[in-house]
Amino acid sequence: MHFADALTAATKEKSPVCVGLDPNVEKLPEGISKDAAGMQEFCKGIIDAVKDTACCVKPQMAYFEQLGWEGMKVFWETCAYAKEQNLIVIADGKRNDIGSTCDAYAEAYLNEMSPIDALTVSPYLGTDGIKPFIERCAKNDKGIFVLIKTSNPSSGELQDLPCGDEVVHEHMAQIIESEAAQQLGPETSFSCIGAVVGATYPEEMKYLRTLMPHSIFLIPGYGAQGGGAADIANGFIGDGTGAVVNSSRGIIFASTGSDWKEAARGAAESMAKDLSGVLQIDKS
Amino acid sequence: MHFADALTAATKEKSPVCVGLDPNVEKLPEGISKDAAGMQEFCKGIIDAVKDTACCVKPQMAYFEQLGWEGMKVFWETCAYAKEQNLIVIADGKRNDIGSTCDAYAEAYLNEMSPIDALTVSPYLGTDGIKPFIERCAKNDKGIFVLIKTSNPSSGELQDLPCGDEVVHEHMAQIIESEAAQQLGPETSFSCIGAVVGATYPEEMKYLRTLMPHSIFLIPGYGAQGGGAADIANGFIGDGTGAVVNSSRGIIFASTGSDWKEAARGAAESMAKDLSGVLQIDKS
Repeated sequence: MHFADALTAATKEKSPVCVGLDPNVEKLPEGISKDAAGMQEFCKGIIDAVKDTACCVKPQMAYFEQLGWEGMKVFWETCAYAKEQNLIVIADGKRNDIGSTCDAYAEAYLNEMSPIDALTVSPYLGTDGIKPFIERCAKNDKGIFVLIKTSNPSSGELQDLPCGDEVVHEHMAQIIESEAAQQLGPETSFSCIGAVVGATYPEEMKYLRTLMPHSIFLIPGYGAQGGGAADIANGFIGDGTGAVVNSSRGIIFASTGSDWKEAARGAAESMAKDLSGVLQIDKS
Repeated sequence: MHFADALTAATKEKSPVCVGLDPNVEKLPEGISKDAAGMQEFCKGIIDAVKDTACCVKPQMAYFEQLGWEGMKVFWETCAYAKEQNLIVIADGKRNDIGSTCDAYAEAYLNEMSPIDALTVSPYLGTDGIKPFIERCAKNDKGIFVLIKTSNPSSGELQDLPCGDEVVHEHMAQIIESEAAQQLGPETSFSCIGAVVGATYPEEMKYLRTLMPHSIFLIPGYGAQGGGAADIANGFIGDGTGAVVNSSRGIIFASTGSDWKEAARGAAESMAKDLSGVLQIDKS
């Protein structure tokens, strides 16, 4: 199934909650070893806890890479396990390169057999750094989320630079929209090319929703970074689809005691309820 | 030793040649298995062939990641082997993230015990995505190279957008220079914060050299991408230091026959000679 259609269906069936798997080894709950085996146990436990509530998980590659190749083994096993549990898997790697190197990244993560459904991509290199990913999306029913307006305090240094009548991230949004509009899911008219738009900039999100009508938004910054449910409502379209909202620490480290799984489940359910309070999700 | 001082000393001792290790598994020479073991054999063979000529190697992470965790094992072993052979190691990962995630990338690649000397970094997120790397550089004598003006045809889509009296990449150059100027090597007055500036845009390189007097340039685009020795002269300063020039395919795949090591050695020596013809490297 086309990536955007699959993600939208999962959003309607469960919720727009995306659980960020940021297994910072220093922060693993009590009773879990602070190594690759512990990281694997933790990630599987979180997946089990949230799989009935969240539409997708977003493993953050940095934390796995921090444990070297052993960490990358855990990363791949985590992605495969999440896929088996019927979760959509968004690998957060913010990869970016050009030509045959970009092709290698696309093949690495979005090949036909990969348990990964989508990858985050950084756009500083222009469309040379995006098109090889789009080819794989079209061929293998995969997706990408391109960084447009990120949630961090310094995101404006580059992304908000004024250029003519607009700012840099608005210009990038239009470049991505022109690609996205060519890759639409038959059921939803959303594209396999999504956009990362931070919850911490609700006004920018509102305008970006008009500039990028075909992109599903991946919205970070909810919870620990300060964004609330009302802030992200503008990222959705009328029927409560068109976006997924990520929370990492707020869910996975809801408790670092022995009740960490139950706490994660509760935090995910609470977030889903919080979002449904501001959205009217059309379950049809 | 401070990263910029170490890289400059190696440039003077050997040459400004940086050999890009892009072990595309499909292109490995005859007699080498098309798998992780073959990739390892190939990378070690290239390192042996170029270690007397090149100051540094630049493993391109995408090709290693394409083989999953087994490829990452080869990546780390390749970095360790290059380091043992007295080569400076620049991991080309173009990593980028914020906050504790950026910290995880910095710790993953630039920790005290890492065989990696420097990492390439993508700047779309602003200085939030750069400062955690700088902390590790200062603490562990490591370096970063921030993408400023890349060598690819579409680099201008974002990087050349006009903003006021300048373009985006010039603005980024000034942000990076303000950080770089605070992290200088005692021997060279170059910073551990370098810049990626493509050989294919020689005029932009000339101006960037004035905007970023403290950054060593990592110059891709020589050879296969079309940049020649004359195009990169503007990236250096008067005594022939201040830059390293990368060639990947032109060296590592100089021959795909059984003479691949000798061909790589010859290509690296030829490139060093080509560069010395346009530079006056002060060996003192």
